[in-house]
Amino acid sequence: MTDLPEIRPGEVTLPDGLGRAEDAGLVFIGRIRTPWKRGDCPRNIASARAQMSGARIELDPRLAPALTGLAPGQPLLLLYWMHNARRDLLLQAPKHVDAPRGTFALRSPNRPNPIAASSVTLIGLDPATGTLEIDAIDCFDGTPLLDIKPWISTVDMPPERP
Amino acid sequence: MTDLPEIRPGEVTLPDGLGRAEDAGLVFIGRIRTPWKRGDCPRNIASARAQMSGARIELDPRLAPALTGLAPGQPLLLLYWMHNARRDLLLQAPKHVDAPRGTFALRSPNRPNPIAASSVTLIGLDPATGTLEIDAIDCFDGTPLLDIKPWISTVDMPPERP
Repeated sequence: MTDLPEIRPGEVTLPDGLGRAEDAGLVFIGRIRTPWKRGDCPRNIASARAQMSGARIELDPRLAPALTGLAPGQPLLLLYWMHNARRDLLLQAPKHVDAPRGTFALRSPNRPNPIAASSVTLIGLDPATGTLEIDAIDCFDGTPLLDIKPWISTVDMPPERP
Repeated sequence: MTDLPEIRPGEVTLPDGLGRAEDAGLVFIGRIRTPWKRGDCPRNIASARAQMSGARIELDPRLAPALTGLAPGQPLLLLYWMHNARRDLLLQAPKHVDAPRGTFALRSPNRPNPIAASSVTLIGLDPATGTLEIDAIDCFDGTPLLDIKPWISTVDMPPERP
């Protein structure tokens, strides 16, 4: 637990956690390459976009055929693994909120399953090597990638209010 | 592998897979309760919504405090686990496409990490029991839940085209 965030005042943990995280297993399918490391990472993806920083995905080359059908300009949903997150926080007190808030009401990386989701634009791809260029993302360089999905408005936008 | 989908003509697998899925572990935080079982599940979430079916999340009660701050009417992003999926498919031939397409260009449940993502509307919640009512979803009854996030347009919609 040495590299995990410290508990802040007002934060509440589930002391024994939820048990060992063995209900299912993940495989890292590649890495996200960004300009960011701890200390200089943008606060959110909008800020990363404003810096026009660009980013790259290095997919496991064995999976390159699974990119067939993707085209530059297309929106994507990326899922990736926040490996430095705490998994035992129930209430969190990030600096930008005035009172501790539940983990499921926050986009904090600290959650029982620290999977992050971001929507990006595919700028280019090289199916021979499994490399993708995207517009921007706000994670650390080397973040493990879990999934690439086509972004689809009927699935990825909530329904219109009645 | 007995309960997994059969390989269709034109589909391509990674014969030895990507290795054992042990890069990270998941914990199931609850279950999604729906009217659907194999054979009568809507094709997609839009179809489930059109049926006004409703659905319920039964969160592990120990995690109920982590709902603090969520409010009915709010859009949510749900991540859940497609436990009957194949993880070795590179090219897939679902009935609705005319030629085999890469796994990462499809929303198929069959993918190296079978995590599904859907955007829904929170209809109601009971923080005492950890139960949430949502508008609709297109997964089988009993599907394991991985995460609940507030849906945020700047993160969950791709950027405007320049």
